Amino acid sequence: MTAPFGKVAVIGLGLLGSSLARAIRAALPAIALSGYDADPAVRARAGEIALVDDVADTAAQAVSGADLVVLCVPVGAMATAAQAMAPGLAPGVLISDVGSSKAGVAAMLAQALPGHRIIPAHPVAGTEQSGPDAGFASLFRNRWCILTPPAAADPADLARLTALWEALGARVDVMDAEHHDLVLAVTSHLPHLIAYCIVGTASDLERVTQSEVIKYSAGGFRDFTRIAASDPTMWRDVFLTNRDAVLDMLGRFNRDLTELTEAIRAGDGPTLFDHFTRTRAIRRSIIAMGQDDARPDFGRSDHDGAKP
Amino acid sequence: MTAPFGKVAVIGLGLLGSSLARAIRAALPAIALSGYDADPAVRARAGEIALVDDVADTAAQAVSGADLVVLCVPVGAMATAAQAMAPGLAPGVLISDVGSSKAGVAAMLAQALPGHRIIPAHPVAGTEQSGPDAGFASLFRNRWCILTPPAAADPADLARLTALWEALGARVDVMDAEHHDLVLAVTSHLPHLIAYCIVGTASDLERVTQSEVIKYSAGGFRDFTRIAASDPTMWRDVFLTNRDAVLDMLGRFNRDLTELTEAIRAGDGPTLFDHFTRTRAIRRSIIAMGQDDARPDFGRSDHDGAKP
Repeated sequence: MTAPFGKVAVIGLGLLGSSLARAIRAALPAIALSGYDADPAVRARAGEIALVDDVADTAAQAVSGADLVVLCVPVGAMATAAQAMAPGLAPGVLISDVGSSKAGVAAMLAQALPGHRIIPAHPVAGTEQSGPDAGFASLFRNRWCILTPPAAADPADLARLTALWEALGARVDVMDAEHHDLVLAVTSHLPHLIAYCIVGTASDLERVTQSEVIKYSAGGFRDFTRIAASDPTMWRDVFLTNRDAVLDMLGRFNRDLTELTEAIRAGDGPTLFDHFTRTRAIRRSIIAMGQDDARPDFGRSDHDGAKP
Repeated sequence: MTAPFGKVAVIGLGLLGSSLARAIRAALPAIALSGYDADPAVRARAGEIALVDDVADTAAQAVSGADLVVLCVPVGAMATAAQAMAPGLAPGVLISDVGSSKAGVAAMLAQALPGHRIIPAHPVAGTEQSGPDAGFASLFRNRWCILTPPAAADPADLARLTALWEALGARVDVMDAEHHDLVLAVTSHLPHLIAYCIVGTASDLERVTQSEVIKYSAGGFRDFTRIAASDPTMWRDVFLTNRDAVLDMLGRFNRDLTELTEAIRAGDGPTLFDHFTRTRAIRRSIIAMGQDDARPDFGRSDHDGAKP
């Protein structure tokens, strides 16, 4: 295919930024790639592994001549990154991002980059790992990328950004930023908060040691520790920028948890059984939609006896 | 090694029972194996796949001549199963189980089988799947099996049961039933309740459709759906039999969740960042202890592009 952009600048070279660079390299090698990270150590590492054609010394240099800039920094760092790169932006450049909350980001970018073409985006993909070495080219394959164009966005820009993400293997959806934030509050933000919370709770007990928590984690707890190992800066910013939707979902979760707690307290088996039966169907649908591994236990390999 | 038992009867041929039978076959082929399940369809299937040497028509027949009987039924079905098999028990037979709560099971078994040798056990292992076809021989490898012998237990019985589980690849720990129930309340029971709860919450929203929840589940939610696909009968019984420890842990979890909620409401970034940083270390320890897959995303294969 013809590349939808001539030069892409990736600002922020962590898990997402480095995966984006690798994916563009693999799928659209004609695109020139520049990159920048505020952390000198990350810039140095990106240079060592030749993540992009050119690791720039400043954000403004990185975006010079680019017709697409993708901000891959924590949501709370978007405004600073946008201001830093503003002097280098070419006329007509399209600005996008990969942040996990969208209404706040859209407002921040519009304020920091007045008059620029901006289409925020969120590829719903990631792992619990961070940094330029954690990225991989297939991260976005079969994952959804949600674009939240402002009402005034140019349809041609939307089409080009869609073409880019589809070329990287993603499926693209378009919705307004507010609805995105509500949907992701339940499919991503609330699960992360709950996981962070339960891992913290388990760490702070007096009558159960951390060693016991670790040893017997295969009973279910270990699943939560994966999510709770995600990048703290990124997640702090998500909760600060999507506060209302997260608080809404937390309220609903608390109401449901109170019901289950009361059922346990009352020894109400039928209510528990009924609840636990309903939740089975959702997993089947997720697997049928290709959004999770169909093998038991996510296909974990730790039953193969290879480990100590 | 010399097999620690001559004939083992497995009562209940679901995920755990069929895994136990397969593991014994693989590691200790000298042991004669009989089996029984209260569900005629499961008995028929067990016969078809020759899961044990002899699928009996009654629990009493299954245990006849066995020097070890392992109850692999939901905790709430233990007493009924014990009563059903009691007439067939040989003198000196050792009775054990694989239930996820232990103090209640110990009391039920002691009442149902007075005068018998009983050592309850809990292999901390499983998947979200159920039934005789879901089992596999390596399920217990590198997992901990917790034995909770009563004070009067014969040390020779404890040694034989330990030898059996170690032969199946498990690591054995011994503790009292009450402490087991407290530890597992945090490493297994609370995580399951939270997962069941959040999956229910996500299913019942008005402004977010189930289709959206499924599509964007890779943002974190899908991890919870695996646990929430676990067997409803088994988990109902766990919560009914380990009520006090679960309510204790729920109280602590709620207190911590309230703190995180207040931090979000107040826009208190440092508190969130601090909490999210502490939880990272636990996962590293779990992986170092061989209790989870070290690969990102549990080594899920859905980035390989093989799926639709």
